[in-house]
Amino acid sequence: MRLTPTPADKFTFGLWTVGNRGRDPFGEFVRPPLDPVKAVHRLAELGAWGVNFHDNDLVPIDATSSERDRIVGDFRKALDSTGMTVPMATTNLFTDPVFKDGAFTSHDANVRAYALQKTMQAMDLGVELGARTYVFWGGREGAEVDAAKDPIEAIKRFREAINFLCEYARDRNYALRFALEAKPNEPRGDIYFATTASYLAFIPTLDHPDMVGVNPEVAHEHMVGLNFYHVIAQAMEAGKLFHIDLNDQKPGRFDQDLRFASESIKPLFFLVKLLEESGYEGPRHFDAHAYRTEDEQGVWDFACGCMRTYLILKEKAQQFRAHAGIQSLLSEIRDGGGETQAPYSSQRAAELKSRTFDRQALASRRLPYERLDQLVVDLLLGVS
Amino acid sequence: MRLTPTPADKFTFGLWTVGNRGRDPFGEFVRPPLDPVKAVHRLAELGAWGVNFHDNDLVPIDATSSERDRIVGDFRKALDSTGMTVPMATTNLFTDPVFKDGAFTSHDANVRAYALQKTMQAMDLGVELGARTYVFWGGREGAEVDAAKDPIEAIKRFREAINFLCEYARDRNYALRFALEAKPNEPRGDIYFATTASYLAFIPTLDHPDMVGVNPEVAHEHMVGLNFYHVIAQAMEAGKLFHIDLNDQKPGRFDQDLRFASESIKPLFFLVKLLEESGYEGPRHFDAHAYRTEDEQGVWDFACGCMRTYLILKEKAQQFRAHAGIQSLLSEIRDGGGETQAPYSSQRAAELKSRTFDRQALASRRLPYERLDQLVVDLLLGVS
Amino acid sequence: MRLTPTPADKFTFGLWTVGNRGRDPFGEFVRPPLDPVKAVHRLAELGAWGVNFHDNDLVPIDATSSERDRIVGDFRKALDSTGMTVPMATTNLFTDPVFKDGAFTSHDANVRAYALQKTMQAMDLGVELGARTYVFWGGREGAEVDAAKDPIEAIKRFREAINFLCEYARDRNYALRFALEAKPNEPRGDIYFATTASYLAFIPTLDHPDMVGVNPEVAHEHMVGLNFYHVIAQAMEAGKLFHIDLNDQKPGRFDQDLRFASESIKPLFFLVKLLEESGYEGPRHFDAHAYRTEDEQGVWDFACGCMRTYLILKEKAQQFRAHAGIQSLLSEIRDGGGETQAPYSSQRAAELKSRTFDRQALASRRLPYERLDQLVVDLLLGVS
Amino acid sequence: MRLTPTPADKFTFGLWTVGNRGRDPFGEFVRPPLDPVKAVHRLAELGAWGVNFHDNDLVPIDATSSERDRIVGDFRKALDSTGMTVPMATTNLFTDPVFKDGAFTSHDANVRAYALQKTMQAMDLGVELGARTYVFWGGREGAEVDAAKDPIEAIKRFREAINFLCEYARDRNYALRFALEAKPNEPRGDIYFATTASYLAFIPTLDHPDMVGVNPEVAHEHMVGLNFYHVIAQAMEAGKLFHIDLNDQKPGRFDQDLRFASESIKPLFFLVKLLEESGYEGPRHFDAHAYRTEDEQGVWDFACGCMRTYLILKEKAQQFRAHAGIQSLLSEIRDGGGETQAPYSSQRAAELKSRTFDRQALASRRLPYERLDQLVVDLLLGVS
Repeated sequence: MRLTPTPADKFTFGLWTVGNRGRDPFGEFVRPPLDPVKAVHRLAELGAWGVNFHDNDLVPIDATSSERDRIVGDFRKALDSTGMTVPMATTNLFTDPVFKDGAFTSHDANVRAYALQKTMQAMDLGVELGARTYVFWGGREGAEVDAAKDPIEAIKRFREAINFLCEYARDRNYALRFALEAKPNEPRGDIYFATTASYLAFIPTLDHPDMVGVNPEVAHEHMVGLNFYHVIAQAMEAGKLFHIDLNDQKPGRFDQDLRFASESIKPLFFLVKLLEESGYEGPRHFDAHAYRTEDEQGVWDFACGCMRTYLILKEKAQQFRAHAGIQSLLSEIRDGGGETQAPYSSQRAAELKSRTFDRQALASRRLPYERLDQLVVDLLLGVS
Repeated sequence: MRLTPTPADKFTFGLWTVGNRGRDPFGEFVRPPLDPVKAVHRLAELGAWGVNFHDNDLVPIDATSSERDRIVGDFRKALDSTGMTVPMATTNLFTDPVFKDGAFTSHDANVRAYALQKTMQAMDLGVELGARTYVFWGGREGAEVDAAKDPIEAIKRFREAINFLCEYARDRNYALRFALEAKPNEPRGDIYFATTASYLAFIPTLDHPDMVGVNPEVAHEHMVGLNFYHVIAQAMEAGKLFHIDLNDQKPGRFDQDLRFASESIKPLFFLVKLLEESGYEGPRHFDAHAYRTEDEQGVWDFACGCMRTYLILKEKAQQFRAHAGIQSLLSEIRDGGGETQAPYSSQRAAELKSRTFDRQALASRRLPYERLDQLVVDLLLGVS
Repeated sequence: MRLTPTPADKFTFGLWTVGNRGRDPFGEFVRPPLDPVKAVHRLAELGAWGVNFHDNDLVPIDATSSERDRIVGDFRKALDSTGMTVPMATTNLFTDPVFKDGAFTSHDANVRAYALQKTMQAMDLGVELGARTYVFWGGREGAEVDAAKDPIEAIKRFREAINFLCEYARDRNYALRFALEAKPNEPRGDIYFATTASYLAFIPTLDHPDMVGVNPEVAHEHMVGLNFYHVIAQAMEAGKLFHIDLNDQKPGRFDQDLRFASESIKPLFFLVKLLEESGYEGPRHFDAHAYRTEDEQGVWDFACGCMRTYLILKEKAQQFRAHAGIQSLLSEIRDGGGETQAPYSSQRAAELKSRTFDRQALASRRLPYERLDQLVVDLLLGVS
Repeated sequence: MRLTPTPADKFTFGLWTVGNRGRDPFGEFVRPPLDPVKAVHRLAELGAWGVNFHDNDLVPIDATSSERDRIVGDFRKALDSTGMTVPMATTNLFTDPVFKDGAFTSHDANVRAYALQKTMQAMDLGVELGARTYVFWGGREGAEVDAAKDPIEAIKRFREAINFLCEYARDRNYALRFALEAKPNEPRGDIYFATTASYLAFIPTLDHPDMVGVNPEVAHEHMVGLNFYHVIAQAMEAGKLFHIDLNDQKPGRFDQDLRFASESIKPLFFLVKLLEESGYEGPRHFDAHAYRTEDEQGVWDFACGCMRTYLILKEKAQQFRAHAGIQSLLSEIRDGGGETQAPYSSQRAAELKSRTFDRQALASRRLPYERLDQLVVDLLLGVS
């Protein structure tokens, strides 16, 4: 079993993930800032393929032009010397108080304009460093007080912003695809476009729907107890899985951003299996962070753990395909008999309406799912 | 304040709601069967506009053709004598063991065929009784064991079924619109198309997307803690709110189908406000049932309560619009200043990129949401 | 309806509540620090009875002895000049990195010792300013990694600390009662003693159980979907409701600390009713904070709203008791007939075992709960 | 690795678990009734140690005395011929409509009396068949309408019932211990004593607290997202883990009663580890059932799976103890240094208060939890 990551595995980390300093609502920073250049070198040594960033992960919001250029120059050198890539970039539209009530959906057209400006500049930065995917997470696009904001208007404003930025990308000939990232709540009481499916529904209403897909995150769907494997299946079936945020999360609580598959072993096995078997060729991006109890060494332990467990589950997916017992059960289960009724014709409908079905016989068909699931558990536990 | 319902309010109930007999996973029936004819008469007396049904709410799954005709005849007489309507009908594709592993998404093509047959017959029945909306709730279309079923294949099978049935409706010149109803789980461990948004994303991929919309249910979105007001806003913005299931539910637990707005007073106030102010003209359908502790009289108490609270909240919405303090705050909050940047032009982008923003000034703008929300609470509590 | 608070209402706020600066996991401070002296004056003007604090809300963790004395002196003057009280105090054992893996339950005996030292000093401070209740919230006493910590050992360590501090209070003749505050998670993945009931079970195992009760918080029990009214009932029945933290929270998400009863109108009506009718004489303490979108004025709006809604619900409780329809239904419901079987005797058991019951007759008894609950909804909405 | 269960493993199943017929709120039975005699024989063949039952799992609620005797005689023969035991019995106080609003907490003293009678008879039956533990799950002891029932009165009524039945057991010289089983909701909107901790708090208030402990169930605590390992730790620390219900459950949804450890692999590893290392000598009782999609063969697959996964996790616990890397990390983590401060003395307190702590040094201590948790994941996945 190969458990050492290589760039061919396309593992990426956000600067904000390994750079997370462990502040939380009830506690102060526990780790010093991490130099982005150091992050690049360290991740490269560990076998990662790339790093992603919010504009302000790299360039402080108040940086002068020359500071920006120096920072970007140093960063690019680190990329060049390590061979690391920047497959994705994004904008921080949530930390600064200016965005306290939203960015693209703010009531204040000046805030919306500033959010567009900040995003255009961040797109420039991302493209300059090679990004091909641009993520939008609208962390402040939401509400605690539904009296104050019209959620229909919020959708329209968000659409206006995405349409504007699509045009900007086209105008500049940027080879960018946009990936929209949903989250149900936190930091807002409720965030608009609460689920990946909500963005999948929104995309066809855009001016350039082909440019836009989704960036689902495990934790964000798990927070409300949705089945992430099903979420990804729908995104893939729609051709819209442009990027993915891998981490872990216990349902029904604050956003934990846990080490990949450290909690949801079986569900994330099916996710890895789907990613590996479906032809998904994008980055395997870890959007997680080390426990607040860790020091810097623990951050690298954390990063290694994310990649290691992914590779283990990838190997388990291979074992699943090669497992005679599992495959035999699947054949039995899936061989349901009968023929599809598509496509519709009047005659087919008439025939079908006159047909007699033996409900009891159909109902009595054996579906050995307990046995199959136990074989999966055995395989995961390494005792098959 | 008018609190007596009239047909103009368009209140409807499912036969299965007032006919619910109080069985649950741990207990047996507590109420005798309710004759559909009696249900129609009683609901008419209480001020309802219509009744909806699953095929087997009216006609038992094993009924002979003559039994069916007698039942339907009696039912039609009740409708005629009371003026009650049947705005919506649907198919029971979940009770019989034949559907134990799905109907349209079953591995067994014979089960899928039977589900189509059953639905065509139920559509015939619905149309015969005047239905204009046909609901699809795929209660068994899901899984406990993700090893057994490919969720991408499930989407394709579901699409095949809906496309087939759209063609059938067109072929028969049925003036029907389809409304898809999502639910995250129960009775299956996970149900495909877990949220309303998931169906909104699915609809554009159908052969006849214009025929198909959604039937969101309060309880189903509340089960996973989503903001139903936001859900409905997206459905409306997409022009897809074809029907709605009103009830109530505490988050994070089994499907409760509580009396409308008996728990979520503030959230459902915003829902009623949106329905009443948005031009929604469909039925206000209550998909709820009386507590298991009730006898038949309690069932009618329950039905009256649903309608009464809706009317109270509708009146509160009117008070909200007329409330000087609220409207003054809203003006202040919504008058954000500035101008929209749409539509995109290269020049506009260039100008915007060169503009200077005073982040601190923008961030310091007052947003008196606590005050506004308190006025809403006052209004709801009747002390404004 | 009297809606203006007075000290007789015993409303209290934590310095950390009105002083909350609006930082969250994704955003920086939006409000400047609030001087504790100003908080005292402003809260007094609004009708509050008292303020509570963590040691470091008042005295910074790094303050010198003379700084401490000056701060405390100024604060006492503010109390004296306003007549405000300090009914409760507590220790901050969660913000500083030293507590990153727990305070009383840390693996490091030096950290445990420091936590005891800090608490003794904070108890001195609290008593100096008049506190009669001392709260313990063990925000860092938990784990993300269950391999690392033995949860049985954690209980023993926590007991050792509470026993030690009880002895300290007795040794100093402090007229203090301890109130233990539970929370299921956040900031830790899981916090030990996850619910109020868990502390109720722990207290009888202490050396001085009479000194120790609970401080339940609405949000903390709502986070996991528990019925707070039932939680408080058990605490009261055990004689252990020593303090209470009033706020609000949507279930299944991050700790929101919302304005009292801004979401859970019906559940918190029953809470207020219980507090007012049960003889509870402690503070009505609001442990909540203004939305991050507010400025300072909004903070006072928030504080007023907490008190106002409490008073409205208190008035509704009075209306409930005076409501003929409700009381009539309650009489019917509660008059179940029959006689209690207590206390046990062999003869009574024998007689009972030989008795014949008519299950159907007993089951058919009318329980008009829908009607009753609708009357409560009417009363809450002000339309009864 | 020994994966074949033997009676020494003390695995038990409820008759209601393997006898579950697959009815749910939306579907009818899919499996025929299972003869208890057959269940005993089949479970014995599979390696189980015992079977448990509700009175009506074995003897129908309407059985005559002679029917009862015949059924019990046949059942005893099956036990004798297989060597199977009946370690636990319980009463069904939830299925019959007579209990629609509670049994021991009903407003109707006749219902309470009937519940006592039924329980005494069921205790007689359980003892006759050898039970040493008697479980109380108050599935109907709860409310949907908090206006209707006083939760303090409910506690008092429940206490009265348990005290009565303790006396009955003592009067009859029954060698029974009582085990109270909590659940937060379902079938009631809220159930009193919502968590195991709630019963742990209740027990010390009984007349014979030594006779009474708890029967925690994985699914019931997982429903509200509590950490079951922590729950069991508190029950054990209190000496009150009298019985345990093993199964599995996804949080925040209906009661699933899934095959043991089919979802929560890591959490239930720690549970098994604790049970095996703590000296717990009671039954390992599986309170779960096969998916509704299974036929009878699938029921036995399910039963085998429960026992198999328990044995795998037990073996993994042994590997954990023998794993040099894990044990080395644990030594480092747990060796926190410093000395305990207990017991209290004035002098110790004075010394402690005067001591100087280096907060930064204490905060900087390495806690390699990411590394440790990854080793646990590796071990669980069989790649360590």
